Amino acid sequence: MNKITLLIYCKDQSGIIASVTNFIAERKGNIVYIDQHVDREQNIFFMRLESEFFTESFSTDDFKIKFKEVLADRFNMKWRIYSSEAKPKMALFVSKYDHCLYDLLGRYNSGELNLEIPFIVSNHNDLKPIAESFQIPFYHISVTKDTKEEAEDKQLALLEKHQINFIVLARYMQIVSEKIINKYPNKIINIHHSFLPAFVGAKPYHSAFKRGVKIIGATSHYVTEELDAGPIIEQDVARVTHTHSIQDLIAKGRDLEKIVLANAVKLHTNRKVMVYNNKTVIFS
Amino acid sequence: MNKITLLIYCKDQSGIIASVTNFIAERKGNIVYIDQHVDREQNIFFMRLESEFFTESFSTDDFKIKFKEVLADRFNMKWRIYSSEAKPKMALFVSKYDHCLYDLLGRYNSGELNLEIPFIVSNHNDLKPIAESFQIPFYHISVTKDTKEEAEDKQLALLEKHQINFIVLARYMQIVSEKIINKYPNKIINIHHSFLPAFVGAKPYHSAFKRGVKIIGATSHYVTEELDAGPIIEQDVARVTHTHSIQDLIAKGRDLEKIVLANAVKLHTNRKVMVYNNKTVIFS
Amino acid sequence: MNKITLLIYCKDQSGIIASVTNFIAERKGNIVYIDQHVDREQNIFFMRLESEFFTESFSTDDFKIKFKEVLADRFNMKWRIYSSEAKPKMALFVSKYDHCLYDLLGRYNSGELNLEIPFIVSNHNDLKPIAESFQIPFYHISVTKDTKEEAEDKQLALLEKHQINFIVLARYMQIVSEKIINKYPNKIINIHHSFLPAFVGAKPYHSAFKRGVKIIGATSHYVTEELDAGPIIEQDVARVTHTHSIQDLIAKGRDLEKIVLANAVKLHTNRKVMVYNNKTVIFS
Amino acid sequence: MNKITLLIYCKDQSGIIASVTNFIAERKGNIVYIDQHVDREQNIFFMRLESEFFTESFSTDDFKIKFKEVLADRFNMKWRIYSSEAKPKMALFVSKYDHCLYDLLGRYNSGELNLEIPFIVSNHNDLKPIAESFQIPFYHISVTKDTKEEAEDKQLALLEKHQINFIVLARYMQIVSEKIINKYPNKIINIHHSFLPAFVGAKPYHSAFKRGVKIIGATSHYVTEELDAGPIIEQDVARVTHTHSIQDLIAKGRDLEKIVLANAVKLHTNRKVMVYNNKTVIFS
Repeated sequence: MNKITLLIYCKDQSGIIASVTNFIAERKGNIVYIDQHVDREQNIFFMRLESEFFTESFSTDDFKIKFKEVLADRFNMKWRIYSSEAKPKMALFVSKYDHCLYDLLGRYNSGELNLEIPFIVSNHNDLKPIAESFQIPFYHISVTKDTKEEAEDKQLALLEKHQINFIVLARYMQIVSEKIINKYPNKIINIHHSFLPAFVGAKPYHSAFKRGVKIIGATSHYVTEELDAGPIIEQDVARVTHTHSIQDLIAKGRDLEKIVLANAVKLHTNRKVMVYNNKTVIFS
Repeated sequence: MNKITLLIYCKDQSGIIASVTNFIAERKGNIVYIDQHVDREQNIFFMRLESEFFTESFSTDDFKIKFKEVLADRFNMKWRIYSSEAKPKMALFVSKYDHCLYDLLGRYNSGELNLEIPFIVSNHNDLKPIAESFQIPFYHISVTKDTKEEAEDKQLALLEKHQINFIVLARYMQIVSEKIINKYPNKIINIHHSFLPAFVGAKPYHSAFKRGVKIIGATSHYVTEELDAGPIIEQDVARVTHTHSIQDLIAKGRDLEKIVLANAVKLHTNRKVMVYNNKTVIFS
Repeated sequence: MNKITLLIYCKDQSGIIASVTNFIAERKGNIVYIDQHVDREQNIFFMRLESEFFTESFSTDDFKIKFKEVLADRFNMKWRIYSSEAKPKMALFVSKYDHCLYDLLGRYNSGELNLEIPFIVSNHNDLKPIAESFQIPFYHISVTKDTKEEAEDKQLALLEKHQINFIVLARYMQIVSEKIINKYPNKIINIHHSFLPAFVGAKPYHSAFKRGVKIIGATSHYVTEELDAGPIIEQDVARVTHTHSIQDLIAKGRDLEKIVLANAVKLHTNRKVMVYNNKTVIFS
Repeated sequence: MNKITLLIYCKDQSGIIASVTNFIAERKGNIVYIDQHVDREQNIFFMRLESEFFTESFSTDDFKIKFKEVLADRFNMKWRIYSSEAKPKMALFVSKYDHCLYDLLGRYNSGELNLEIPFIVSNHNDLKPIAESFQIPFYHISVTKDTKEEAEDKQLALLEKHQINFIVLARYMQIVSEKIINKYPNKIINIHHSFLPAFVGAKPYHSAFKRGVKIIGATSHYVTEELDAGPIIEQDVARVTHTHSIQDLIAKGRDLEKIVLANAVKLHTNRKVMVYNNKTVIFS
């Protein structure tokens, strides 16, 4: 059995759904998931579809070629087709905070995540023992003002060598530059420790404390050139009170960060996220 | 323009989605919403679809006839088709508590609800002034052990006279009997003031207080013969602490009840609920 | 029986709690609630205390005089003492949106709120019928760029005449000027339809939609001269998805606004809020 | 500097707070936290107080002796005094599920938990590698119907040898018998994977799925002889929909279980929990 996931994005127009479902039916596909969304303001159509094919002759590559010829060109679609066999390869970037790292590796070890982690990279050596206890290669690439370009070249070499599909910044305390972002557009997931767009930038828990908010949050988003302004994938919040010190906010926030980042990673690897206009469509 | 909403429910089998979307396309329909769900344990397929038809010759009645012939019989579907023009008629049953009544009537007045309220009925006279201030007919039908059957006959006569489509029990403190339930299967919405299945029956806030729970809830569900055991439409919860008295739980619960009931009413009237196996599928 | 609520705020120092509880004990008071908070960064001490006095000779006025002499001056306290008999008088300012008005009046009618509403004032006539149906005096004071000062003078005259203790802006779509703010410092409660400090100012739901947030919020705060920047009393949030239009956000937001505003009003009238450094301490 | 935490529980009566705060003041103590609660139904008074003592001559033991003589006997208090120096010793009981184990050990390693973990015990060997990677002694004590008594004797010997203060059942899939419960009254924390009192006993996610609830939960509670009926310490919930399979509920539930259990452990070790009438008072 072959299973594919199809993501489509084009100008809204009549007949797309019927055409696509017909195309699948003609190839004896069994649609097991279909969902669509129309942004009425922008007049854009989005679709996510999963289909199983039981015929021996089925080939994902042939399907792609025909899909392009018959449908994608006709409707001027942007589209992606994923085979369910391929596990995406994720690079983990960390610094000194260990909570998101522990959380992701714990889930990875339990088989909860549909991905591979070829390596962990860090600008510090502190988390090396954790990487080792989970038996994942750990690379230390220090980053200073002067060595940043060189460091990013090393990172890019690692990413290429390991055929990395997407990057997760698990509280990586460095700004990733344009060069890497452009190689991984909407493929770098960051976790920001505030309820964006509130408290962009450094020390958001300090700002939240100062402002006296009654709820704190965490936000995972794709990295774009503008700091903390990329498409939001997932957010969550927790109540706080005047009794919470900054340290308490940080501790409570860690639990938010872990879950929000893990959920974003799952949504990404399950091909449930589509990006447009700096926003996301998240299929359920 | 004609707009219809189609709800389908049948054994899962290949080709349903393609057949239905084709059927719509052949009639020049523009599908503006499609969502589907498969219960893999029970092998049941569910679909909700909205389509617009711009041809002058379109007739919902013809569509229904053809749909039955061409598709419904072939796939052995249970199905319903609603025209978006028809506003469902809701009967409101209340007793003495006014919070859900105020809330629903406030929303109704603001145009938030897609429905009509031909009348309010109560076993007490207390809330008559509220009905009057919103200029909705109010019927007082007292219910005692001895008069229950007679009272329900009066209620049924009112329901029939006003061609009521569904009933909302807005903290109506009487058990509705089989006779009415059978006339309105999955069309009577109740709000229960607990997080079902915890605390079935009377005085759930008292039970919650006694058990020392840290979260209370409210549940809206369709009424079935077994008390508080019908298909759940919507639930919500709120945190409580040891400092909350039973009165505090009741006050906090009122806010839950209002929102949970209002959401259930909206889901129902927007044709987003399907019922099977005493559970609901809630389309988004 | 006399019951008082005491709120204290001063530099943190040894012996405050013992001195205050002793002072109460000497007057045969029975402390039924005590809670305290220390802001360790600022070294400020806060206390809220409720005490019952059963002796016939007890006089709140005498208590206040003695309290000042014996304790307040010694510890350089800022303090307030409220008798539980006095119901605070609230003025309601509204414009055209009715949801917060319906909600507050529904609660008021049910006896849920410990306050009096001498009047409702609006810059439009739209909500007059609601005020009338609840039998509360309604004043229409139109506000234009040219008449703003005159209008505020009329408002101030009303506030004074009715001995108003605090003001609630229930989606009042005008900026209240310094003149009124200075007469009611930390006594004007606004409801802002966003999760502050995100989306300050006009049309926050539009901004939230554009940014693609996954959670929206509402914030009630005391009005200060800087727009939407006063001390936050209460916040709440709700999940949204890409399927929600701006209109959906507005509708979902209404439910948040109602509850957040009602909770803020309850906290304020139950003397549970203390303000310092543009933040609040909210006693439970 | 010495710091103590004092927990008191007695019949409500006049003068307790003043007497206790005076007692502290006479010993030059600086109260840094005081909170109290009265259960008005049962007429029981609870207090939690933290005080710092800077005099060299201060002795916690002397304080205890005097406190008993002067206050505890007079008011017929149940009371406990903890020195902040002593870190409680926690035994971890696990079976095969690793998520709560990973979570607690990750927090432990990060210094987030104020406790020591002398050992982990399990009826299976599966999680031994995790214990080893965190360098915590792991004991395998298999439990079968026939060997249960013997196994519990071995467990008790371990508990005694390591002077364990409290036990955490981190998804330990065995029922702990009376013998151990009686040695650790209100000192065994369990995590149950449902929103108690709904879905007591085995396979709660299966029951939740069958009932079609829209929200699932997790509950941490002290273990008593009646299954899943002990005093609730902490609960949390998450929304689910018809699209979630039982496996999805289990996966979502894991995140709830981790956080609810971790929070319960923190509340317990920070001496913030008092138990009475099979309920808890949780100080903030």
